[in-house]
Amino acid sequence: MITLDLDEVPTVVTAGVPLFSDALIEQGVRPVPVEWAPPAPDTATALDAIAGDRRAEEATAESARRLATARPHWVGIGSARDLLGLGPREFLHAGPPVDWADAAGPLRGALIGAMLYEGLATSVDEAERLGASGAIALAPCHSRGAVGPMAGVVSASMPMSVFEDSVYGRRAYCTLNEGLGKVLRFGAYAPEVIDRLRWMERVLAPALAAALHRHGPVDVPMLIAQALQMGDECHNRNRAATSLLLREITPDLLDTAETPARAAEVFRFISGNDHFFLNLSMPAGKAAADAARDVPGSRLVVSMARNGTEFGIQLAGTGDEWFTAPAPPVEGLFLPGFGPADANPDLGDSTITETSGIGGFAMAAAPAIVRFVGGKPADALTNTLRMYEITATEHPLYQLPVLDFRGTPCGIDVTLVVRTGIVPVVNTGIAGREPGIGQVGAGLVTPPMSVFADAVRALAQRVEE
Amino acid sequence: MITLDLDEVPTVVTAGVPLFSDALIEQGVRPVPVEWAPPAPDTATALDAIAGDRRAEEATAESARRLATARPHWVGIGSARDLLGLGPREFLHAGPPVDWADAAGPLRGALIGAMLYEGLATSVDEAERLGASGAIALAPCHSRGAVGPMAGVVSASMPMSVFEDSVYGRRAYCTLNEGLGKVLRFGAYAPEVIDRLRWMERVLAPALAAALHRHGPVDVPMLIAQALQMGDECHNRNRAATSLLLREITPDLLDTAETPARAAEVFRFISGNDHFFLNLSMPAGKAAADAARDVPGSRLVVSMARNGTEFGIQLAGTGDEWFTAPAPPVEGLFLPGFGPADANPDLGDSTITETSGIGGFAMAAAPAIVRFVGGKPADALTNTLRMYEITATEHPLYQLPVLDFRGTPCGIDVTLVVRTGIVPVVNTGIAGREPGIGQVGAGLVTPPMSVFADAVRALAQRVEE
Repeated sequence: MITLDLDEVPTVVTAGVPLFSDALIEQGVRPVPVEWAPPAPDTATALDAIAGDRRAEEATAESARRLATARPHWVGIGSARDLLGLGPREFLHAGPPVDWADAAGPLRGALIGAMLYEGLATSVDEAERLGASGAIALAPCHSRGAVGPMAGVVSASMPMSVFEDSVYGRRAYCTLNEGLGKVLRFGAYAPEVIDRLRWMERVLAPALAAALHRHGPVDVPMLIAQALQMGDECHNRNRAATSLLLREITPDLLDTAETPARAAEVFRFISGNDHFFLNLSMPAGKAAADAARDVPGSRLVVSMARNGTEFGIQLAGTGDEWFTAPAPPVEGLFLPGFGPADANPDLGDSTITETSGIGGFAMAAAPAIVRFVGGKPADALTNTLRMYEITATEHPLYQLPVLDFRGTPCGIDVTLVVRTGIVPVVNTGIAGREPGIGQVGAGLVTPPMSVFADAVRALAQRVEE
Repeated sequence: MITLDLDEVPTVVTAGVPLFSDALIEQGVRPVPVEWAPPAPDTATALDAIAGDRRAEEATAESARRLATARPHWVGIGSARDLLGLGPREFLHAGPPVDWADAAGPLRGALIGAMLYEGLATSVDEAERLGASGAIALAPCHSRGAVGPMAGVVSASMPMSVFEDSVYGRRAYCTLNEGLGKVLRFGAYAPEVIDRLRWMERVLAPALAAALHRHGPVDVPMLIAQALQMGDECHNRNRAATSLLLREITPDLLDTAETPARAAEVFRFISGNDHFFLNLSMPAGKAAADAARDVPGSRLVVSMARNGTEFGIQLAGTGDEWFTAPAPPVEGLFLPGFGPADANPDLGDSTITETSGIGGFAMAAAPAIVRFVGGKPADALTNTLRMYEITATEHPLYQLPVLDFRGTPCGIDVTLVVRTGIVPVVNTGIAGREPGIGQVGAGLVTPPMSVFADAVRALAQRVEE
């Protein structure tokens, strides 16, 4: 096992009464305050009500077991129209439910882009009017078995990957990753964005579908397991996983390509984007998390997601109910020319990676990620170690070499979050707050504690009923 | 910075008088003895003679600077006949000079295979007679600007990669990696081995040469730098580097392939072998180490190499002279069905990786490698930290995320080895001791201290002259 060297001044995290931190400051230590206070009386009562309930313990363990042992495979590609029955004026988005009036800039931008792509509007103004008129229907990706990075917008014509869990049988869906810079998921809708979406529909999706058909189901959790031994955490760093995916599918891509030039075009597109794999690690997490759903009494978090306005979670023991709070800002590094004032609050379903035991929870695997999200390599280790305090199990397949191949912390127990005051650590991208901008940075986000407290109270109420 | 946790029993390394280790054993600690004793009187005199010599210090620093700042690119592929002027009965091999009579089993096996491949013999018996007759000429790869993994046998028809250092202009050469299992470099010569060599000459080399020509020089040090942030140390673990190489060259491979099926054949061959990149990290190291050669007075080790019978080194300050000792055994993990009794002593030029600041010296980058070579992940970190004690510089490009992006320990100063008693750490494969067997395992080897002491004395003598 490995710990921090105390040759350097230790980082001290303080919580609760200021007496402790004041004493440290007097001794020359600069503590990092965390926003923790004892749970409010009604939350404490709720915690007590469900504490020591053997059936709830078993339910939580069962949820966690399913989450950690699901084995979702990438089995095919089709359109959202065919796979999800999405209508011409229906759009999915990341996070908990939200309407146009409350939608954040990048979500509006992505919806405008999707309307242009679908031919529902021919100008940005027309798309905005259509959005505001109530003529389009919005629903969370999570409500349709899907997940989407950042704005997470899905429209009927978009190609979706299909995942199928070979253990519990759940299916999950996700779009293909568009690449970097000006892309729909970060709220951009310039002509190049729409052109790329059309190329993905016309060229990329059929080529990948044919390769996948010839290859057979791709064991994505096995690729994640390998990538965790190659410096990825599979949320904000997917360089190894994208490389391994290319090694896995390229022979079949070549065997099924119309021409070598077409195969080269597809290979270049995927290889040009280290984040390509994110849109595979996400639905793998979604299928696993959905296997953990709907276990009465279970305290397990089965979704964490943000729509750019609100941060929300769902529990295995409380059905489809969302517990939400305003989306927090992201602390991190900005691309040249951008700063905190340009940033939208936290956005996207990509927190399904943390929900399923990778991403921020597996940061110890990815010390080099601090060059992208900020901080020091030792922080990556600290973040993972902290997550063992709030998780119900360790993932049997996702192992961390630096921790002697210990499994990643997996399955957030909402009561542990509230008791310890430790919230899940999340790596994420940062979108520009205005529609049409795109990505402005990447960093870490601190989820709001209130959503976990709200969830505990709702769970206690269900148990009483 | 990161250190070992003392919750576990510490590993104690003891050297010198047994009193210390005996005391530890009585306290229940099992020390790891290292073979260190104060340098013999003549070596100590030699060390004193060259100590504090400002010109020698500067020479060593200059050698180390060249080693760490060379930038060798992969620029082409040709035959050993054309590139090195190798005659039909000339063969190169790994390590210091050796003749047929003293050649180890796997080296003889590889020479037999190469004679069959060249059509010099049609049976193993005939090849053995030819070898013993003195009708074939043997020379070290290192003497011709080349390096070869394990037996390192090169014959005239074999395709070689050409490396060119864009800073100091040196060229270096290496064969293409054959894959795993029964392969020539581990001493196997079955028909499948010879067939594969012919396929490499006929199909692989021309396809790669065309792709490389279209691509332009491949910046191999940049790939190594990335792979070190992806869990490779680029000697015994090359999974990330091989993946990145495929991403780099596949588009050009597709653009130049005769048919998609031919491209798929080549892609599958490279992707089927995580060690493919080893034969690129080695000549990159060779070109850099050769840039550091021939600096009068320099204490820098510019080659470490083994022919299966002897382990040898060369210094920048002592020209082409080899300092040798019997090759030590390799401690490690064996493939199913094999054990230490099946193992040949240490073999191969692949120690050029350690000579140039990667491999065992960069093990901290590759904690997962312990599953292949044995030991615990913490040992990987310890090995790298120890190498800073015997090296003259840190590599500016090869950085270790887990050590806060510190450069790898680079450039072995022979006087530091003798003063500290710390020998270079080397990851390596293990060949079967009988000709024709192939690989039997992988592990770590402890080079013989005497070669470093011999080199110090020779250096002192040159300085006196």
